[in-house]
Amino acid sequence: MKEKVVLAYSGGLDTTAIIPWLKENFDYEVICCCIDCGQGEELDGLEERAKLSGASKLYIENIIDEFCDDYIVPCVQAGAVYENKYLLGTSMARPGIAKKLVEVARKEGATAICHGATGKGNDQIRFELGIKALAPDLKIIAPWRMTDIWTMQSREEEIEYCKQHGIDLPFDASHSYSRDRNLWHISHEGLELEDPAVEPNYDDLLVLGVTPEKAPDEPEYVTMTFEKGVPKSLNGKEMKVSEIITELNKLGGKHGVGIVDIVENRVVGMKSRGVYETPGGTILMEAHQQLEELVLDRATYEVKKDMGNKLAQVVYEGKWFTPLREAIQAFVESTQEYVTGEVKFKLYKGNIIKAGTTSPYSLYSESLASFTTGELYDHHDADGFINLFGLPLKVRAMKLAEANKNK
Amino acid sequence: MKEKVVLAYSGGLDTTAIIPWLKENFDYEVICCCIDCGQGEELDGLEERAKLSGASKLYIENIIDEFCDDYIVPCVQAGAVYENKYLLGTSMARPGIAKKLVEVARKEGATAICHGATGKGNDQIRFELGIKALAPDLKIIAPWRMTDIWTMQSREEEIEYCKQHGIDLPFDASHSYSRDRNLWHISHEGLELEDPAVEPNYDDLLVLGVTPEKAPDEPEYVTMTFEKGVPKSLNGKEMKVSEIITELNKLGGKHGVGIVDIVENRVVGMKSRGVYETPGGTILMEAHQQLEELVLDRATYEVKKDMGNKLAQVVYEGKWFTPLREAIQAFVESTQEYVTGEVKFKLYKGNIIKAGTTSPYSLYSESLASFTTGELYDHHDADGFINLFGLPLKVRAMKLAEANKNK
Amino acid sequence: MKEKVVLAYSGGLDTTAIIPWLKENFDYEVICCCIDCGQGEELDGLEERAKLSGASKLYIENIIDEFCDDYIVPCVQAGAVYENKYLLGTSMARPGIAKKLVEVARKEGATAICHGATGKGNDQIRFELGIKALAPDLKIIAPWRMTDIWTMQSREEEIEYCKQHGIDLPFDASHSYSRDRNLWHISHEGLELEDPAVEPNYDDLLVLGVTPEKAPDEPEYVTMTFEKGVPKSLNGKEMKVSEIITELNKLGGKHGVGIVDIVENRVVGMKSRGVYETPGGTILMEAHQQLEELVLDRATYEVKKDMGNKLAQVVYEGKWFTPLREAIQAFVESTQEYVTGEVKFKLYKGNIIKAGTTSPYSLYSESLASFTTGELYDHHDADGFINLFGLPLKVRAMKLAEANKNK
Amino acid sequence: MKEKVVLAYSGGLDTTAIIPWLKENFDYEVICCCIDCGQGEELDGLEERAKLSGASKLYIENIIDEFCDDYIVPCVQAGAVYENKYLLGTSMARPGIAKKLVEVARKEGATAICHGATGKGNDQIRFELGIKALAPDLKIIAPWRMTDIWTMQSREEEIEYCKQHGIDLPFDASHSYSRDRNLWHISHEGLELEDPAVEPNYDDLLVLGVTPEKAPDEPEYVTMTFEKGVPKSLNGKEMKVSEIITELNKLGGKHGVGIVDIVENRVVGMKSRGVYETPGGTILMEAHQQLEELVLDRATYEVKKDMGNKLAQVVYEGKWFTPLREAIQAFVESTQEYVTGEVKFKLYKGNIIKAGTTSPYSLYSESLASFTTGELYDHHDADGFINLFGLPLKVRAMKLAEANKNK
Repeated sequence: MKEKVVLAYSGGLDTTAIIPWLKENFDYEVICCCIDCGQGEELDGLEERAKLSGASKLYIENIIDEFCDDYIVPCVQAGAVYENKYLLGTSMARPGIAKKLVEVARKEGATAICHGATGKGNDQIRFELGIKALAPDLKIIAPWRMTDIWTMQSREEEIEYCKQHGIDLPFDASHSYSRDRNLWHISHEGLELEDPAVEPNYDDLLVLGVTPEKAPDEPEYVTMTFEKGVPKSLNGKEMKVSEIITELNKLGGKHGVGIVDIVENRVVGMKSRGVYETPGGTILMEAHQQLEELVLDRATYEVKKDMGNKLAQVVYEGKWFTPLREAIQAFVESTQEYVTGEVKFKLYKGNIIKAGTTSPYSLYSESLASFTTGELYDHHDADGFINLFGLPLKVRAMKLAEANKNK
Repeated sequence: MKEKVVLAYSGGLDTTAIIPWLKENFDYEVICCCIDCGQGEELDGLEERAKLSGASKLYIENIIDEFCDDYIVPCVQAGAVYENKYLLGTSMARPGIAKKLVEVARKEGATAICHGATGKGNDQIRFELGIKALAPDLKIIAPWRMTDIWTMQSREEEIEYCKQHGIDLPFDASHSYSRDRNLWHISHEGLELEDPAVEPNYDDLLVLGVTPEKAPDEPEYVTMTFEKGVPKSLNGKEMKVSEIITELNKLGGKHGVGIVDIVENRVVGMKSRGVYETPGGTILMEAHQQLEELVLDRATYEVKKDMGNKLAQVVYEGKWFTPLREAIQAFVESTQEYVTGEVKFKLYKGNIIKAGTTSPYSLYSESLASFTTGELYDHHDADGFINLFGLPLKVRAMKLAEANKNK
Repeated sequence: MKEKVVLAYSGGLDTTAIIPWLKENFDYEVICCCIDCGQGEELDGLEERAKLSGASKLYIENIIDEFCDDYIVPCVQAGAVYENKYLLGTSMARPGIAKKLVEVARKEGATAICHGATGKGNDQIRFELGIKALAPDLKIIAPWRMTDIWTMQSREEEIEYCKQHGIDLPFDASHSYSRDRNLWHISHEGLELEDPAVEPNYDDLLVLGVTPEKAPDEPEYVTMTFEKGVPKSLNGKEMKVSEIITELNKLGGKHGVGIVDIVENRVVGMKSRGVYETPGGTILMEAHQQLEELVLDRATYEVKKDMGNKLAQVVYEGKWFTPLREAIQAFVESTQEYVTGEVKFKLYKGNIIKAGTTSPYSLYSESLASFTTGELYDHHDADGFINLFGLPLKVRAMKLAEANKNK
Repeated sequence: MKEKVVLAYSGGLDTTAIIPWLKENFDYEVICCCIDCGQGEELDGLEERAKLSGASKLYIENIIDEFCDDYIVPCVQAGAVYENKYLLGTSMARPGIAKKLVEVARKEGATAICHGATGKGNDQIRFELGIKALAPDLKIIAPWRMTDIWTMQSREEEIEYCKQHGIDLPFDASHSYSRDRNLWHISHEGLELEDPAVEPNYDDLLVLGVTPEKAPDEPEYVTMTFEKGVPKSLNGKEMKVSEIITELNKLGGKHGVGIVDIVENRVVGMKSRGVYETPGGTILMEAHQQLEELVLDRATYEVKKDMGNKLAQVVYEGKWFTPLREAIQAFVESTQEYVTGEVKFKLYKGNIIKAGTTSPYSLYSESLASFTTGELYDHHDADGFINLFGLPLKVRAMKLAEANKNK
């Protein structure tokens, strides 16, 4: 009996060409596994396509809700943003995919997992670290790094290779942006983006929405509620997180929200330039933060910001299934106990403009904040506070003056 | 001979009323000192007003360039932002004012400094920590905290008090937003803002610009250059930093950029809600970061972000004249060595949209970033990298599996 | 009916004198509450003494186990050490005491809590922040800061005051070190320690043990086990944490372990110099860390160190009952999942010398670590790892060389 | 003309065998370069040995003072310690060696550098990252990773290989600890240390000193001075840093100071167990910190600790020649401005016991620290300080109580 390999399969040209290649070079039985994280692609006919290409089986696994609840929500709660801009859309999806691939491999008794990520990107790391952490015994095959036996250099050559192996499918040979899409975002790389001096060609580029210039002239108000840091309703209607993100994507896309143009540092050591569209995600993170402003105290807010940055690094590097990610998540969850309330904002041509926030656990006190003296605040206390708060500066100034005098 | 006190004087009702109050309650000779950080107020006639109010002297000190070069630039380079939103406009100005007050006090042989900051805010701390650090021997008088002898409770009472002391000036008794303005920003507190559930009344509120809705329908392109992290030119014209900020304020204000609505945590322990307009500053910080993306390596970028957050805390707390601020600034300056280049972006209805970045020290390499294999990058290296990068995860998974088996 | 105040009572002169003072100045009914954290003092006769002094009731509350389980263990797990040396003995005890005082106040329907901490120390903050967090409505009375009505300046005057109020107890007027003791440690301040240039007079000072010079010439081996980061047994005998600490105190004290001489920075803004004896605690923290070396991965270890430092700050500042402390503790607890195993070490004249560590969850692999190549490690991987790990440095060097050439 | 390779040469068996191997496999002209960081080996006769082995030239470069001034001092000032224990002895030396190898390569017009570090350790990374950063064009040869052509598996085989190539030198075939020594430390790995459950065999192991048990029964007092964080004199005698470390090594070694037994996490992903002797370094770092306690303020101390940890990571990972290391060093240097003064301590059987510290810039104030009220401190200030310091906790408690009531 042949050994089995589970292939992360998208139905596209690259992963389709891998099927005959795996059989030819390793004599594997190929199990395809297409994992739906909300990439919005046509999955109809995928089974025929996989089998026609020589796969013995195709799994289609929808992990959208798991993606939202187990990966997105913790990152939103943490405020995890990589290098000030990137909302981790691809990074958060990869470990969930790796987990599902391992599950299928176990079910099938496969001995290897194969993915189509390139040898220069972050995704190979994220897939493989996920697999190593969950199934250290499984072999990993990354064709694009096996330049000795993976000799195809272009889409034309891949199409030709497929044809030679009896796969005659209507693939498009034309070169486009390199993209990754899921429920949370779509990323774009390549073409004119490869020169950071060049403005992105947004009209060709954008998939999930429009530029601020093309957005409606009328703003649109939105309300959202959260319970313990988890989004619960949108415009008064309770929904699953995945439904909220879906709706926010429509709203954000329509109003030109969440387009980011970034030069980022990859884990493998080089800078790359990309454009991300994260319409719903941008709104969700902003809305969550809007609520946190009201309910988190200063010290927690500050340290949580560091933890969010740290989580962004960890997730970006593909280290989801690690004790450090778990510990950071435990920290963050602890802070979400009272992140419950309603936020209101309006969307207008790329802007998310706050329009009021309320929470039963708000730490804001109007009487405390205003200039009049209330019961809780004695202005004289500020004298003492400042005297002790500034004592180290004062003592230092006196001591140094004395030291300089003695010289 | 009477002891002298230096009063931080704005020409407004509050600080004018302090003049007779200081004379009455302490028998001081009052030296007024009006420090121009770009608040854009009418300074004509200030001298007459001060003297009419009983001051023996008025200093008008323009520290705009010092404010820009010594306070703003280090914070821009650090990317210092308080609680994700606040660009520290007031916080950065206070130490410069304190320094000047101390200089005047020394020149005049004064024994005390008086300021009109309230007893609930951050500014009292910033003024006083500055003074304590620079002149620990000087007495500090904060009338608004001296509720036993400062008995005026309203603008009406202050006007009445002034009249009783022979000061008949055309002050307005009406209540408005509480504001602080300088070249970098204007802050607004009070009125409807005191309820975080309420949307700001931007039409009444805004001073430096318009809302995105009211901004022009045409975007406007801007180019800027930096040398070692210092802004050098705007749209091809070399200018002083203060001139660049002035121009950027006009551009940003026109295009609805830099309006922030925030509930923030004050040092004195309560939350407050305010709106900040920082049109030029928002652009400047974004432009600087746009360039840093190209020239900073990943590790530096990450640690610098933590340092920027730390600096924001330090500056917000009024601890400018401290060894910690100096050390953080030394760190940041070291990272700016190669932050030289040109950024281009367009302004459109509240958005700052990147439109190309170049630097002689760019670490971006098109051949490295693109999918093809170049001389610098061997795809096989990724195998080894991932194997070792993921080794701890793999070993852990194997060890834990073994431990669980042994149970 | 009189209002009630709960007084944190030790039976010593200071807190005894407070009893008549509270009655005289506030007309309170005084409920004394003596909280046993393992200070090892004679509690017999305390009830008579309290009543003789005018208290209407005395509670003696033993919180030793709670102190160990809820306060000490989390700090040990975190590796929380203040300013590199101080193991937080007093800091960890204060919140537990505050909590108990509040419980008694609630039970008694008291409206105020009184403590005898000085106005220059950290303990006033720790007590009062604990009370504010748990019972914000309770009034706090700190006699030593009420210099207008607390006029006693010396032990002689306190004894005299007691006598005048009919309290004739055998108090000692002589001046000694200022000390705080509990199960975890004893601190010493005052006398010759007030000059950091002077060597401590250890012969007079030490209470819990001896100096290394006076320790036995024979080393003593100790073994300990931990489960999920909690100490479980000592020398093969299972014990409660409080018993383990008690035994370790004897061992550490005997062998001169855990004596620290430090100049530390107090929260209230000045430096103070003290000597701490933490014989058992020093061993416990070292043993815990010895085990963590074997089971924590590198990334977790590094971030946990930062969290431990952060927790030390938070606890030192008296901010135990805060969301930040809870979140940090959640982080730390998450890391302790596999901190299970046995450590062996020997004690010898101030030294804790490792003598072997084992854990079922050890991440150490002899075959991996040794120089021979095993299945898990391919030396060629190091080529790829180093090439990518060093790629940013190499690219930077090339880019800067190019830039300099172009100048 | 043959291409030249510069070989990092120690005179030992491993690097000697590399000489003929390089000639045989690459047809290089081999330039040996022996870099003296204070490893204390016999350098006499090295030239003959190198030439006899087939090298065309031998450089002997003494970089001891550079090692001390440019690498050790910044790390001491930073308090850089890896994983709580390791004083970075090997890590700090590698970049200095790499720098010198590059200098020799440039001088000789060599095209490659060869080192004898193993494929499982950290040193290969440190050497190669140094070379990549300083000379990105140079080829790097690491024979021990070239398992296809470097086929020797044991010392016996290396000796045999040498003999076959006409090198008949008195090498010892016996297996011992794997060691790295320089002026700062010596590391030991291998043999019984490979099992963390086993106590080190210190009698065989130790090179630079004795165990605490074998140290003298008499303590020895030492005084040191620092200027701006740089050690200046020892026991009253001004010396170069290298001389101070040399003397401290003797003192520390004699008194059993600075022996560390650690399981550490290597960069390449596995744990390893080693013993370090750092007698002088341990004293130097402790003495420096003893002085810092007196002169650094609390906020600086805390952030500097984080920076020290960060530097330890950076240096351990071989990233010396990076902008991040430079920036951290700039931070640290800024904090050292006033780290000037004298420390006194005594050494006794593994202990460094403080015996007094003085500094003209001491921030310690006896009058402030003591319990009496001085001019600088008004006990009433503590009321205000605590009230505002605790305000967030109090407000939170009240708000949450209210919210719970409303439920």
